[in-house]
Amino acid sequence: MWWQEAVQAPSEAVMDCARERQLTLTKPPGSLGLVESLAVAFAGWQNSSAPRVDRVEICVFAADHGVAEEGVSAFPQDVTQQMIHNFATGGAAITVLAEDLGASFRVVSLGTVAPVAPMAGLIVQQLAPGTANFCYRPAMSVELLSSALDCGAAHAPRKADLFIGGEMGIGNTTSAAALTSALLGIPPEETVGRGTGVDEAGTRLKCHVVTRALDQHLCDEPGELELLRRLGGLEIAALCGAYIAAAQRGIPSLVDGYICTAAALIACRLNRGVREWLCFAHRSAEPGHGHLLRALEALPLLDAGLCLGEGSGAAIAVPILRSACILHNNMATFAEAGVSTGEVDS
Amino acid sequence: MWWQEAVQAPSEAVMDCARERQLTLTKPPGSLGLVESLAVAFAGWQNSSAPRVDRVEICVFAADHGVAEEGVSAFPQDVTQQMIHNFATGGAAITVLAEDLGASFRVVSLGTVAPVAPMAGLIVQQLAPGTANFCYRPAMSVELLSSALDCGAAHAPRKADLFIGGEMGIGNTTSAAALTSALLGIPPEETVGRGTGVDEAGTRLKCHVVTRALDQHLCDEPGELELLRRLGGLEIAALCGAYIAAAQRGIPSLVDGYICTAAALIACRLNRGVREWLCFAHRSAEPGHGHLLRALEALPLLDAGLCLGEGSGAAIAVPILRSACILHNNMATFAEAGVSTGEVDS
Repeated sequence: MWWQEAVQAPSEAVMDCARERQLTLTKPPGSLGLVESLAVAFAGWQNSSAPRVDRVEICVFAADHGVAEEGVSAFPQDVTQQMIHNFATGGAAITVLAEDLGASFRVVSLGTVAPVAPMAGLIVQQLAPGTANFCYRPAMSVELLSSALDCGAAHAPRKADLFIGGEMGIGNTTSAAALTSALLGIPPEETVGRGTGVDEAGTRLKCHVVTRALDQHLCDEPGELELLRRLGGLEIAALCGAYIAAAQRGIPSLVDGYICTAAALIACRLNRGVREWLCFAHRSAEPGHGHLLRALEALPLLDAGLCLGEGSGAAIAVPILRSACILHNNMATFAEAGVSTGEVDS
Repeated sequence: MWWQEAVQAPSEAVMDCARERQLTLTKPPGSLGLVESLAVAFAGWQNSSAPRVDRVEICVFAADHGVAEEGVSAFPQDVTQQMIHNFATGGAAITVLAEDLGASFRVVSLGTVAPVAPMAGLIVQQLAPGTANFCYRPAMSVELLSSALDCGAAHAPRKADLFIGGEMGIGNTTSAAALTSALLGIPPEETVGRGTGVDEAGTRLKCHVVTRALDQHLCDEPGELELLRRLGGLEIAALCGAYIAAAQRGIPSLVDGYICTAAALIACRLNRGVREWLCFAHRSAEPGHGHLLRALEALPLLDAGLCLGEGSGAAIAVPILRSACILHNNMATFAEAGVSTGEVDS
């Protein structure tokens, strides 16, 4: 299948040069932490000694979840469609951020219970009226999963410095929790969070729903693709496809929060090479996110209690990537500035 | 003394309105975490329903530390002066970041072992040839401490949306560790870190130096101002004065890493009102920083292994504050976007 095809190879030689340059810049080695690593990564990704994060492409995938009928969200299911409209008209967090960043932005509706009316700024690709309720049956058919993965790939950028995938779908933290539990063998108590803001009783209900779903779907030890089909969502599959396609095209992705990271873990399990094209924006307030980050050996930049989704945390983190490149390109070296280096020569 | 005079009062009424507005924006309440709290804080600080972070003023205070003669840094003491030159000529991390942010920037040299030659872009206020080695005697005289506090106040902004203080001084993580241990009653093993990159033996030496300093200076239970005089640095005292003066002028400060946070804690102990004018950029790689943040009940935005100083971590975090305001001002409300709200009305 296309998603198993090799990803591009970041340039090791350029990364080595970038690492060497970092050691010559007027700061103690390593003192800019992840900011240094990001500059080195972008140098390798862009095969450039002067990396930049100018062209950012953001795509929000939206879809409905059958499991929403279990009452797992604090918001009614209509909100998926209403928010799709809000993305297209520019009022949502991610659209405000995208405009401020000068990023290109699109929203793709993959499947809502009632079809979304076409409008400017919105791509409607209604693959199904949402997923099935995975408490009773697999969320997607084989064909539907395949279409969602393809759709994600189709909307990954062909030429950009950075891809950000976002998601919207009432019920999708429940799907992310089920996937996280299934992929990592972690009990629902540790993967279910408050999502859009359910109360304690709501969290217990979500936990119970995820437990039922796992009972239903894990008995035959399904692989990750099959887990995605049974427990995922259309937007989660699309994100998975988009991360893989971006890596195959040599474009790095900045992964947002819980739902995006679940998709990213599946992408990396389906195609190991994808991992080296990912960076991670933030540690979500959702408790399950930490498990996914650990499994991916990911070190996110922000720890700010974000849990909105839409790609908003990633968009907030973009200026840090830009700073990383600007520092790498513009700081003076010890030699240029006439500054003594450390112990090695003192 | 001037530093005990009352700070401005952020507008509680405007903050209440901002909190209410946050609840009406098209996102689950609280889902933008600290980003929401920052927007509310800026509304209160600016007494404005549409807060902005346009005018950022950055001031780096630099000075030498007598304790450097104990061999506590991986870099020779000359580097303080060389870096002052690098700040003035634009090659340092903070100057690159300041330019990118469109921030106003100045560097103030408060006291170096050999006097710094005057040059464009540099303010020289040589109060002393650095501090005394606090292993043997107080770092500063009463007069010198007072001059350093005054100097900090003089360079705090009079009209700005945000102040960022930075610091440079070979040996100043040792001073910050001594202050942190003394202020919080924490053993040096938990407050001494690798600083500019000393090795394990160097860390043990730093720990021993701090222990000697504490033995020398803590026996008569000095107050915070006296601790600052005995164990601080000229740039740390200046930062402390600047944070207080900024709060008195109604200007919030974004606190950088370990050394700045030590200065901020002293500022808050000298004048309790200062705390409500501070926000915190990042959790430093320096282990003592976590103790200071906890003592200040501070929730920083970034967790990226930064430990450069200069105000660089704060500068990297500025776009997050700008995003917070832009989201607050520009997102659609549930009513405007026709999006259903959560459980309360469903």
